[in-house]
Amino acid sequence: MAKKKDVRIEKIRQARKESNPALFFEKLLAGDHAALSRGITLVESNAPADRVEAARLLNQAIPHSGKSIRIGITGLPGAGKSTLIEALGNRFVNQGKKVAVLAIDPSSGIGKGSILGDKTRMPTLSASKQAFIRPSPSSGVLGGVAAKTRESIILCEAAGFDVILVETVGVGQSETEAHGMTDLFVLILLAGAGDELQGIKRGIMEMADIILVNKADGENVDKAKAARQEIARALHFMPLHDSGFTTQAHICSALDEASVEKIAQVIETFFESIKQSGFFDANRKAQMLNWFHEQVKQEVLARFYDDQANKLQLKALEMAIENGQLSVREGLLQLFKP
Amino acid sequence: MAKKKDVRIEKIRQARKESNPALFFEKLLAGDHAALSRGITLVESNAPADRVEAARLLNQAIPHSGKSIRIGITGLPGAGKSTLIEALGNRFVNQGKKVAVLAIDPSSGIGKGSILGDKTRMPTLSASKQAFIRPSPSSGVLGGVAAKTRESIILCEAAGFDVILVETVGVGQSETEAHGMTDLFVLILLAGAGDELQGIKRGIMEMADIILVNKADGENVDKAKAARQEIARALHFMPLHDSGFTTQAHICSALDEASVEKIAQVIETFFESIKQSGFFDANRKAQMLNWFHEQVKQEVLARFYDDQANKLQLKALEMAIENGQLSVREGLLQLFKP
Repeated sequence: MAKKKDVRIEKIRQARKESNPALFFEKLLAGDHAALSRGITLVESNAPADRVEAARLLNQAIPHSGKSIRIGITGLPGAGKSTLIEALGNRFVNQGKKVAVLAIDPSSGIGKGSILGDKTRMPTLSASKQAFIRPSPSSGVLGGVAAKTRESIILCEAAGFDVILVETVGVGQSETEAHGMTDLFVLILLAGAGDELQGIKRGIMEMADIILVNKADGENVDKAKAARQEIARALHFMPLHDSGFTTQAHICSALDEASVEKIAQVIETFFESIKQSGFFDANRKAQMLNWFHEQVKQEVLARFYDDQANKLQLKALEMAIENGQLSVREGLLQLFKP
Repeated sequence: MAKKKDVRIEKIRQARKESNPALFFEKLLAGDHAALSRGITLVESNAPADRVEAARLLNQAIPHSGKSIRIGITGLPGAGKSTLIEALGNRFVNQGKKVAVLAIDPSSGIGKGSILGDKTRMPTLSASKQAFIRPSPSSGVLGGVAAKTRESIILCEAAGFDVILVETVGVGQSETEAHGMTDLFVLILLAGAGDELQGIKRGIMEMADIILVNKADGENVDKAKAARQEIARALHFMPLHDSGFTTQAHICSALDEASVEKIAQVIETFFESIKQSGFFDANRKAQMLNWFHEQVKQEVLARFYDDQANKLQLKALEMAIENGQLSVREGLLQLFKP
């Protein structure tokens, strides 16, 4: 009983400390996981009071951000993302680096928890003090799950994390968003001679800097090699990326330390090159301005489309256009009287 | 001299007739090429007086539009688009159909004329009274070249054209636009074992309903067959289209009547299927509403970004964000004060 009470008192003390914004931010800067968690919860919150505080926190964090390497990792469920993230994460941790794993999962509902980022999926990594694993914000958040993840990256960087892994499921829009907030984008596929690839959208393959054919172990190795070759053939059609690289395809096994080391080195070589070429910095700036303008445009359009008078007029114009009574041009003239 | 004067008087008479809007529209409805040309020139014009008249003309035309089949045709320069369009066009003309060829070429400058739609490229077709060939509007037009082509389609349909071929160069944004205004999208490629395909963006292959490996004649046939097979392998990765079809790949030769007939039949089968499935109508309506909302959004954003006060504020915010002094969230808060 006494012990339970102690714990409770400690919690209250902790909460008091954290409610002091200066102290709380200092703890975050020092890499305190609880403070970082609380910061992320704050930026994920849509409560009006929290929004003001979140904006202040982000402004504090911005000057301390930017120093990590940001890696997007995607793949269909079952491709072995967690195991590979755990293996790569441990490799970086063993080198003395701090690793954060964030997730974008638009399917994760409010309250029902998230499949992604679940700590039980990465038992070794989540036990490490140098690693921070955060599940996806729930899909109910305003401004989209991805916007929150962008802000979480900034907080993780302020908290001194060196490697940020952004995990998504390879099925939709969230890949484009993850691609737009990371320096390197990795697609994980399974060996199996092509048929599984149909589920992966072409655009995702095109976005990938590195494609890994995973689970290339045991009797799977030959199949993986064949799949890698088939992918390389398809990659033949793809244009050069802005980074100056084309998509690379490799086989890999999260169970084989040498294989994980090889992939880690491919990643490090990629970062050396883009830092040297200046693409790293230029891309980060461009991503930030893109993000800003995307949100500006969203807000401008939302304000227009949410306006009650506009709504009614649009509905009437749409009907007339759909029924062939009105040209698009005349519709625009009516909507935007000169 | 006397003859020259007669010609001049006739021209003045003609102009008077055409300046009578009711009479002019009647001529357009009757399929008069000169009236159609003048109508298209009108919708392409950016003169304020013309814009009002153009809107009126389009509203008159709308109830008479929609009955053609609209086919987008793209391919890199040299792929043999003109020759194939001429061959297909003649085939449809010989069946008693009226064929219009429009072009979207964003590279065609004001005054310097257009490479596309040039009548000399299609000598037989342009000599036919059942065919109408129009070069691309010049790139200087407001609202984009593609918007004008959409409106030209409506005028061609009102003028009774049964088949509308929209030609673009397979290198950029205009393909997406052509795809968004046609029922069937054809990509023309050259035989040559893949290397030429690199110039074609992946997205364009994905958009295509039909891919034709052209110039499959003489000693080229085997190369064309091999290229078709390579494309078919790449198509294997592609998702099903909304039409319910996947992309088909065929070899073809514009010089071989049987080959042209086969392709014409592939096209006709495609249209039968999408008309039967209801996709034809649903897609047309969706395209029209998309077009409308695209332009609405463009206009709303243009009004926001053109505002002088917004411009200044955005510039200041961008600088602060780029220099790491301001978070995107705080920037948005400053721009859109709640």
